[in-house]
Amino acid sequence: MKIMAQTLTEFDTISAISTPIGEGGISIVRTSGEDAIKIVNEIFKGADLSKVPTHTVHYGHIVDPATGKTIDEVMATVFRAPKTFTREDIVEISCHGGIVVTNHILQLILAQGARMADPGEFTKRAFVNGRIDLTQAESVMDIIRAKTDKARQVAVGQLEGGLMHKVKAMRQEILDTLANVEVNIDYPEYDADQVTAKQMADTSKDVISQIDKLLKTAQEGTILRNGLATAIVGQPNVGKSSLLNYLTQSDKAIVTDVAGTTRDTLEEYVSVKGVPLKLIDTAGIHKTDDKVEQIGVERSQAALKKADLVLLLIDGSQALSDEDKVLIKATQDKKRIIILNKLDLGQKITVDELKEKTGSEVISTSILQEKNLDELEDLIKKLFFSGIENSNDQIMVTNQRQSGLLAKAKRELEDVVQAVNDDIPVDIAQIDFNGAWDTLGEITGDSAPDELINTLFSQFCLGK
Amino acid sequence: MKIMAQTLTEFDTISAISTPIGEGGISIVRTSGEDAIKIVNEIFKGADLSKVPTHTVHYGHIVDPATGKTIDEVMATVFRAPKTFTREDIVEISCHGGIVVTNHILQLILAQGARMADPGEFTKRAFVNGRIDLTQAESVMDIIRAKTDKARQVAVGQLEGGLMHKVKAMRQEILDTLANVEVNIDYPEYDADQVTAKQMADTSKDVISQIDKLLKTAQEGTILRNGLATAIVGQPNVGKSSLLNYLTQSDKAIVTDVAGTTRDTLEEYVSVKGVPLKLIDTAGIHKTDDKVEQIGVERSQAALKKADLVLLLIDGSQALSDEDKVLIKATQDKKRIIILNKLDLGQKITVDELKEKTGSEVISTSILQEKNLDELEDLIKKLFFSGIENSNDQIMVTNQRQSGLLAKAKRELEDVVQAVNDDIPVDIAQIDFNGAWDTLGEITGDSAPDELINTLFSQFCLGK
Repeated sequence: MKIMAQTLTEFDTISAISTPIGEGGISIVRTSGEDAIKIVNEIFKGADLSKVPTHTVHYGHIVDPATGKTIDEVMATVFRAPKTFTREDIVEISCHGGIVVTNHILQLILAQGARMADPGEFTKRAFVNGRIDLTQAESVMDIIRAKTDKARQVAVGQLEGGLMHKVKAMRQEILDTLANVEVNIDYPEYDADQVTAKQMADTSKDVISQIDKLLKTAQEGTILRNGLATAIVGQPNVGKSSLLNYLTQSDKAIVTDVAGTTRDTLEEYVSVKGVPLKLIDTAGIHKTDDKVEQIGVERSQAALKKADLVLLLIDGSQALSDEDKVLIKATQDKKRIIILNKLDLGQKITVDELKEKTGSEVISTSILQEKNLDELEDLIKKLFFSGIENSNDQIMVTNQRQSGLLAKAKRELEDVVQAVNDDIPVDIAQIDFNGAWDTLGEITGDSAPDELINTLFSQFCLGK
Repeated sequence: MKIMAQTLTEFDTISAISTPIGEGGISIVRTSGEDAIKIVNEIFKGADLSKVPTHTVHYGHIVDPATGKTIDEVMATVFRAPKTFTREDIVEISCHGGIVVTNHILQLILAQGARMADPGEFTKRAFVNGRIDLTQAESVMDIIRAKTDKARQVAVGQLEGGLMHKVKAMRQEILDTLANVEVNIDYPEYDADQVTAKQMADTSKDVISQIDKLLKTAQEGTILRNGLATAIVGQPNVGKSSLLNYLTQSDKAIVTDVAGTTRDTLEEYVSVKGVPLKLIDTAGIHKTDDKVEQIGVERSQAALKKADLVLLLIDGSQALSDEDKVLIKATQDKKRIIILNKLDLGQKITVDELKEKTGSEVISTSILQEKNLDELEDLIKKLFFSGIENSNDQIMVTNQRQSGLLAKAKRELEDVVQAVNDDIPVDIAQIDFNGAWDTLGEITGDSAPDELINTLFSQFCLGK
């Protein structure tokens, strides 16, 4: 069940294209494993790669050994274990790029006996071989998929081991206490039980407070990673598409130019003061805002359901219409900002009035004249990101796996505290204490089931 | 006007992302120029790159010097001039991939004083610095854009200098003769003029025959490079979409998964025995073949106009319909193959009959039962590629620039022969002889105007 039990069949030689697929100046085919150097050497004409020092680059040609024909002019870089990404021997072939050449080279390597790498398998080996823990492995993909610079920053912090060290420290604290508990159980004297129980409760309380601090970062961390699902709603002609245009103007738009995505399914991301907003159903807005048509609640319903944040636009130069009231009601359970737009045409509704009526954040703007839009951005940021300004060096929990396990460990530790309060025997309370130690270990991968590991890495991209 | 006259302002330090944009395991930011090592060293924390040997790779971090914050964990490879792609110092930063990180690193390098590279500028420097000639530079992009393995093979041959050596040899031949001509003009004796004229005519004839051989490869070469524009036409339900499905089945389909392309505009390429067909207006076929509707000639007209090859499908189990006759007439000036489909339902029209009537290649098939489809592929190949089987080591002309210049040189040499035949004075005939030498030099870039060079490289992709 445990990762430690994995057999050595995992360690054959694997290969994959590690650069995105497409036309580009350089493509890289990466091969890792015991036979990596031997295999690539079979198809490389240039220096004898088996004899070159580690971390050196060599000019040469890839030649098909079956036909003797040159496939491409390349550079081959040799990394010898253990100071490599996977802790195994690695050879990277840097070729001219393009799909046909790169594929051809990969096929030749596979023909020489390497196996096509699974998604994330290089990083998985780095984990299995002990170079990185699970939180660092997760951060690798977070870096690649980062939507904003803040998200990248948090991911890099995690790759550097911030979260890992924090979790390991908590585990060590539990372990130290457990050692004492064992001693006291082995040498049972008068009062030992009580001392032991108090130790466990104290440690539990201390670790719980540390977990709480981490969990407080989880919402921000997850939003930084995945983007804040945002729906823009409002009556026709109230300024939805103007707001959308403002948000998606080039300095805010986040390029997500991923091969294979088509315009229909492309998610639009924008960066609002470093916070990634994932805009929902913007195609609908693009298409329909120009026409004078009755967009009821129905159309918005699906978008609303998915939204973490609703930006509700209301024409502030008019009295509230019945349709506005319907939308206010439909969004009342959501985190929302009501935007009184068309400030430039005068105001029939005041911010304070509406604030009182709805209990929401309200701001008045003129999107047309770009008035108060900076304030709107501040408001969005404030609503979700209390700590983001200072989060530069802060350790953050960035995904649900991590926060779920932290919450579980917290519950187990709370049970320990409760058990001690209730004078339940130490060895019973100890079960939960042990449990919390295991649960925290799952975060770093020290004690994670194989299935989890496999699922986690299968979400990686190919070649990583 | 000549490339040699370019000033040194060209040789500042340039940088660009050299891998395709998208999610991938590795992205590379390449910097080239006098200050490449110094500039990257400013943002690289790890080994002192100014002191490391050439062709070595170093683990470290990119750190923003303004904030002291770590941007990513990277590998930096140092290549010292002159044994590099550009013949300048090059540093390649291999980072975790993803758009945000890669862009951030590029921006830091630009902030340190590098300039954003123009498309193709690295390769242009390789050319300007004399490492490769123009035909080799062109082949770099041909390798990247190769649609089939044959196309890649021809491009690699060209990169290895096949065409360059051939053209240089022809120029040398002209130059040697010119030297003799000069001697004879300087020491004019009796009959020298006639000897000289004969020498020029003989050389011209010899070079013309070499050019002819190259020009014969131009059609194939260009098709290999760009694909053979192919239109599938025919009445509804005659099997167009079945043929399309057969051609685009996975082992034939050429992946052209380029970032930014959407399904609507994606060109479908298939490989027929190594020949890349670019299928025209297949979206129309996909959409309309199922419905029983009258597709007249109008719809196909645009597709036909662009086609190098027409595959005209006719239901061979029925007598020729009026609509069939219209299509036969509409395509009569095109290279075409008439496919008598539905062989499985019996034949009302014979191949020979139709061959005689139309003067076209005709083949009967059952696409449904996959009968004679291999023969169809052979026929397509035969129609365009006489020499392809043996073209493995053959030098081919692969683009219109090259073939246009060869044709021009040929005309100039023919004028020399004509002038000699007409007893026109040697120094007049010599003008065209000189011209041919210049024209051939344009192919390799030995004598190419700046504008040409700039246009040519601007068609490259960024980062190459």
